[in-house]
Amino acid sequence: MSKPYKRILLTGAGGNLGRRLRERLHDFADIVRLADVADIGPAGPNEEVVQCDLADRAQVMRMCEGVDAVLHFGGVSTEVEFAPIMQANILGMVNLYEAVHKLGIRRVVFASSNHTMGMYETSQRVDAGMLPRADGYYGLSKVWGENLSRYYWDRFGVETVCIRIGYCFPEPVTHRQMVTWLSLDDLVELLRRALVTPRVGHTIAFGVSDNPGRWWDDREARHLAFQAGDSSARFTVDGGQPFAYPPEDDLSTFLQGGAFVTTGPKYPQ
Amino acid sequence: MSKPYKRILLTGAGGNLGRRLRERLHDFADIVRLADVADIGPAGPNEEVVQCDLADRAQVMRMCEGVDAVLHFGGVSTEVEFAPIMQANILGMVNLYEAVHKLGIRRVVFASSNHTMGMYETSQRVDAGMLPRADGYYGLSKVWGENLSRYYWDRFGVETVCIRIGYCFPEPVTHRQMVTWLSLDDLVELLRRALVTPRVGHTIAFGVSDNPGRWWDDREARHLAFQAGDSSARFTVDGGQPFAYPPEDDLSTFLQGGAFVTTGPKYPQ
Amino acid sequence: MSKPYKRILLTGAGGNLGRRLRERLHDFADIVRLADVADIGPAGPNEEVVQCDLADRAQVMRMCEGVDAVLHFGGVSTEVEFAPIMQANILGMVNLYEAVHKLGIRRVVFASSNHTMGMYETSQRVDAGMLPRADGYYGLSKVWGENLSRYYWDRFGVETVCIRIGYCFPEPVTHRQMVTWLSLDDLVELLRRALVTPRVGHTIAFGVSDNPGRWWDDREARHLAFQAGDSSARFTVDGGQPFAYPPEDDLSTFLQGGAFVTTGPKYPQ
Amino acid sequence: MSKPYKRILLTGAGGNLGRRLRERLHDFADIVRLADVADIGPAGPNEEVVQCDLADRAQVMRMCEGVDAVLHFGGVSTEVEFAPIMQANILGMVNLYEAVHKLGIRRVVFASSNHTMGMYETSQRVDAGMLPRADGYYGLSKVWGENLSRYYWDRFGVETVCIRIGYCFPEPVTHRQMVTWLSLDDLVELLRRALVTPRVGHTIAFGVSDNPGRWWDDREARHLAFQAGDSSARFTVDGGQPFAYPPEDDLSTFLQGGAFVTTGPKYPQ
Amino acid sequence: MSKPYKRILLTGAGGNLGRRLRERLHDFADIVRLADVADIGPAGPNEEVVQCDLADRAQVMRMCEGVDAVLHFGGVSTEVEFAPIMQANILGMVNLYEAVHKLGIRRVVFASSNHTMGMYETSQRVDAGMLPRADGYYGLSKVWGENLSRYYWDRFGVETVCIRIGYCFPEPVTHRQMVTWLSLDDLVELLRRALVTPRVGHTIAFGVSDNPGRWWDDREARHLAFQAGDSSARFTVDGGQPFAYPPEDDLSTFLQGGAFVTTGPKYPQ
Amino acid sequence: MSKPYKRILLTGAGGNLGRRLRERLHDFADIVRLADVADIGPAGPNEEVVQCDLADRAQVMRMCEGVDAVLHFGGVSTEVEFAPIMQANILGMVNLYEAVHKLGIRRVVFASSNHTMGMYETSQRVDAGMLPRADGYYGLSKVWGENLSRYYWDRFGVETVCIRIGYCFPEPVTHRQMVTWLSLDDLVELLRRALVTPRVGHTIAFGVSDNPGRWWDDREARHLAFQAGDSSARFTVDGGQPFAYPPEDDLSTFLQGGAFVTTGPKYPQ
Repeated sequence: MSKPYKRILLTGAGGNLGRRLRERLHDFADIVRLADVADIGPAGPNEEVVQCDLADRAQVMRMCEGVDAVLHFGGVSTEVEFAPIMQANILGMVNLYEAVHKLGIRRVVFASSNHTMGMYETSQRVDAGMLPRADGYYGLSKVWGENLSRYYWDRFGVETVCIRIGYCFPEPVTHRQMVTWLSLDDLVELLRRALVTPRVGHTIAFGVSDNPGRWWDDREARHLAFQAGDSSARFTVDGGQPFAYPPEDDLSTFLQGGAFVTTGPKYPQ
Repeated sequence: MSKPYKRILLTGAGGNLGRRLRERLHDFADIVRLADVADIGPAGPNEEVVQCDLADRAQVMRMCEGVDAVLHFGGVSTEVEFAPIMQANILGMVNLYEAVHKLGIRRVVFASSNHTMGMYETSQRVDAGMLPRADGYYGLSKVWGENLSRYYWDRFGVETVCIRIGYCFPEPVTHRQMVTWLSLDDLVELLRRALVTPRVGHTIAFGVSDNPGRWWDDREARHLAFQAGDSSARFTVDGGQPFAYPPEDDLSTFLQGGAFVTTGPKYPQ
Repeated sequence: MSKPYKRILLTGAGGNLGRRLRERLHDFADIVRLADVADIGPAGPNEEVVQCDLADRAQVMRMCEGVDAVLHFGGVSTEVEFAPIMQANILGMVNLYEAVHKLGIRRVVFASSNHTMGMYETSQRVDAGMLPRADGYYGLSKVWGENLSRYYWDRFGVETVCIRIGYCFPEPVTHRQMVTWLSLDDLVELLRRALVTPRVGHTIAFGVSDNPGRWWDDREARHLAFQAGDSSARFTVDGGQPFAYPPEDDLSTFLQGGAFVTTGPKYPQ
Repeated sequence: MSKPYKRILLTGAGGNLGRRLRERLHDFADIVRLADVADIGPAGPNEEVVQCDLADRAQVMRMCEGVDAVLHFGGVSTEVEFAPIMQANILGMVNLYEAVHKLGIRRVVFASSNHTMGMYETSQRVDAGMLPRADGYYGLSKVWGENLSRYYWDRFGVETVCIRIGYCFPEPVTHRQMVTWLSLDDLVELLRRALVTPRVGHTIAFGVSDNPGRWWDDREARHLAFQAGDSSARFTVDGGQPFAYPPEDDLSTFLQGGAFVTTGPKYPQ
Repeated sequence: MSKPYKRILLTGAGGNLGRRLRERLHDFADIVRLADVADIGPAGPNEEVVQCDLADRAQVMRMCEGVDAVLHFGGVSTEVEFAPIMQANILGMVNLYEAVHKLGIRRVVFASSNHTMGMYETSQRVDAGMLPRADGYYGLSKVWGENLSRYYWDRFGVETVCIRIGYCFPEPVTHRQMVTWLSLDDLVELLRRALVTPRVGHTIAFGVSDNPGRWWDDREARHLAFQAGDSSARFTVDGGQPFAYPPEDDLSTFLQGGAFVTTGPKYPQ
Repeated sequence: MSKPYKRILLTGAGGNLGRRLRERLHDFADIVRLADVADIGPAGPNEEVVQCDLADRAQVMRMCEGVDAVLHFGGVSTEVEFAPIMQANILGMVNLYEAVHKLGIRRVVFASSNHTMGMYETSQRVDAGMLPRADGYYGLSKVWGENLSRYYWDRFGVETVCIRIGYCFPEPVTHRQMVTWLSLDDLVELLRRALVTPRVGHTIAFGVSDNPGRWWDDREARHLAFQAGDSSARFTVDGGQPFAYPPEDDLSTFLQGGAFVTTGPKYPQ
């Protein structure tokens, strides 16, 4: 059967999520182009492999040539010092959208992060119409990406779905992981919806499974028709250990960003 | 078993929805009075048939005599030139509510339309607290009906449930039809809830099944306790053809009104 | 000095407001075309006079030919039975906008009314983002006009400023008149701003002077830069008579529409 | 298996809800201390019994000693004259929070009531961000408790979950009971979530099962991760009798408080 | 000239504000009845004096007999232990409204306080639609009064204007006093507006002069038509001393309640 | 007389605004340190001069040593290609806040821009609670600064006032300049208020004089007590030329960003 797109590009293909997504993307396109800053080995059937430093404009332009849609999972994905975040997540985004716009690529799915909103409290309901409150340089760089893509929609008509991805690992353990969990299947389904909804304009969606008590209200992304198939309800918090009151000064339980809110930002000495 | 009402009136009984609803209404009343501007043939058991031009006040008054509740599906139901819309949907509504008020009928269910909001974008969430943005003369006439019935509630205590009906045909095919689909069973259930909720005041409800990605948030009508039993998820969009990007200038995919946004209004030459 | 427009059209030129506005409009255009359903006598210098029944499409088209902007004050301006309201205010508006659109006229200023919102309570703050709650057929016809003009903006790019005019007579006496008063000077200034603001899109503004305690919050029309120069503060309520508690059942003091809320629609017998 | 708390206190243990909850609380703590103003008989296994008048500060202090969390169901639970409500629900709450604060108890679950919002209309959607509109002295005393506990959170960091309990009896019969029903199982589950969510700050939650048409939107308490397991949909309203229009002057069907709105405060003669 | 009311009652006539208001009230009524728990000396011309303990229902009933409107400034007006606050401000309010309702008095002006909202931050804008966040027992008792009076409006049609009075002393000195200042003239004008606006329903107004930087948005009370004539701009903050950064742990500069937020409830030992 | 601060730092002292502000800052501090990337000549009395490249962390640290408050006007101030914007406005901001935080400086005033919101329409009211919609790389870099400073407040307690500066040149000429004008006197007054308000937390204020029709609602910054003393009302739009309809395709009149919205990002070839 024919597929929605001829060629899609996955950046960050060598990263944690990229590796898990790789085999799942073939439903979306005849050819899946895989890009990473590192060498990720040879291409498989119906695959192309490109090595690319996002901070290098010419490389980014080449990476995007011939592509119909981009799944942008590349860049730095954790809280580190600012220099690499700036190169990959800030300059890299500019290079990517410059290429996308110049080449006439019409849609991008951008792997944003819940750390764009990490300074909201865990007893607050958050939606995409609220102002960002990032919890570190990493989160701030994701807010940059959301705003940049908004600009390319307002000005040039490039469509983007920003997905504020939750805790996307196989098994959630802590309360925070349970609340923010996104199963791989649900991520794939959300990517599918982001790719085949006829018009998305600039949409900010929360990437989260149907977990009890999730903090994020996805009302601004209903038109994507994403319906989570998984829920963290089938896991047991803290391996079944009884509830223990968190220490009064444990910021990581007060704020949605969890451990990020106390680690970030890292100043090199 | 006894039924909620003794006699209810269905206007527009000869129309597309009227014909499909006819047999389903007997649960709601001992007698179902069927009205249409055209001859719809003889009455069946527990039925009465009235031929009535909504623009004729005296006929409307006779049509309503002895009735306990009205299901108003009559009038023009598509985008045509203004004259017949004015006669049937604007003057006709005034005649109807004048009769309802004078005769002491306490509740009306009014078949409004999603075309009251057709100029909102397909990536916007719409609810009944937002200002109408109709997509043509037909949609504007439905907004007229909603506002008129609001007045009769504020001023005279006549209760109305306005149902902004979606795509109410047996099988949705396109993306827009999938998003806006209302199954006949769900319409009947919504009518039932509109008839037996003790107090409805003036309620604007969206008539839509439990479809993925539906644009309409029915928060202002929760008290009706309508729960859709159907979903368009069981259909396949475009008969399973792969996703194709709509042309950049295709307004009918940007705006919720679909094809209506480019056809309407029709000026006779 | 040259003027903003070459030719503007004032409809309803023979009405109460029309007569008072006539001499004030010459600042806005080289030629002021005056239209009314009745004979309003001969044209003065730089004036043209047209007799026109708004319900007659061909007459309306001729009335609008060669015009650069329209000040639409024509139609029925009080609560009467429905038939004349429908002809002048509903069909008349459709005829006008059909002509405006076909002739490429780019801007209309529409004399709407506070009776679009008359069923809100006198202790409520009202703004243009709230749903209309008209207080009779007249108010409903003005809501029709607002929605119709919204449609012509959304669909065809015709710009309209709807002015919800308050109590526009020389001297306010009652509390309600004091709260809703609009001086003629302020109306003229508001017309001027509606005519010379570069972009107005579809704007709903409240036509009210800078009165203490006014119910209407004009936040949605700030871009017009209207600044009232008058205030009812210089008048004395009820001629200085001491405060008297209104009777408990006096709806006209509870609801913003005042006396309109109880006269309601007039049914001919 | 070990339990979330060592010792929890249930006040109002001899009341209607207290008696039904008693056996269900042992999952939450090693020891359940039961308090009531009346003699409730001997303690069972893992139970302690305390007789306590909430209006007596010293007794309240003793009642709370050694406790890890409080489920406060004590006080007057229906509309009576003001004196006993003031003693038990107003002074009693102050005494309780003074004790809780002084003893360093970190969390309270407070049995508030839907009668805090009883004067909203039955066709209105209500959430915890809206201003209270109590329907009598009882409801007002519950608003007092909500505000007092908010203060102890803002000022002293005592966490409270206020549960606005609906109709919590075994079988709902009337429309209002169907809409507001809270099953005992769901109440227990809500208590569990209120006890084991790591941070609750000051949360106002609606205690209601997953009933069709429920008036209350629990959006402000999503972080509790409460998911109702029951629904009144399995009951039949009014024993299956057909719908009958309520009398036009029946306030108890217009307002959410039901019969409370007309019994109102009881003035002793 | 005749006056708005025949007889008004001022409670708390011996208090700080009561004494300053006494001579200013004669414009509002032919007879001013002055009440206080203490002996305030003899009545002057057109005055009546009543000694009354608000906690005594019979005394309150007598105090209110023959009165047309009440200005309720009585009760405890600062943060003290709970017992006297409960007697005067909670029980006292119940006694007052019981009397007002039974005697058919139609309007009350209630001296509420900004300490109903004292726990909001000084960089937050506060309006009357936001949930109260009191800063102590005193503030909580004022919230009680606001909610109680709301109930008497919803249920019995007694009208109340609650005035959240700011810093009402002759000369503001500190930043907080400058922001929250209410001149006596402005208080009198606000009382006048509260007394002569035809319908007030239940209104919560902020009593504050036209000070730069005031935290309170009085949008919900615009219909009172209060226009402050004074402003703290004519005073000099801190006697002209240069700005000094407040200590980082000085809660009284972070929270609107000022010093109240740290004195908090006084527990007798 | 003593002054609010001992030493304040002005960055961008050689820029357009910096030069005009220089002499006006001496009221705020005993010593004004002036910094710029270029050589700005010798220091005057009570001045210090520092040459500093914002992209150089060590230089920025030295620039900030001994400073009590920062007025950050440095960086690129117009739409150019991305590389210099990234160095000065993105990396520069990170370097600045790192220094501010490490050195314990408690307050920054950040010269943000109205181009953070330039893609909103000219008929829309904009406030600081709405999501940014920048009109180019420059505007995006200012959004970056606002979000970064928000983070330093949430995480480290560094206070910032972000001022979205309008058209700050001596004389406005076009409609857009009239609407967005900020006089130098008003800018100085706004700086003063930003410096001497005891607590500002993280505040986003619009820097605009009291112009008729201004698009920006400064409700989120009321606590600064800024009161504009100037207004563009005293200027004449377009030198008094009559109103001329802008061309239908002139985006710069539809969108608040004006000419910026079409120059957009400049891609070097």
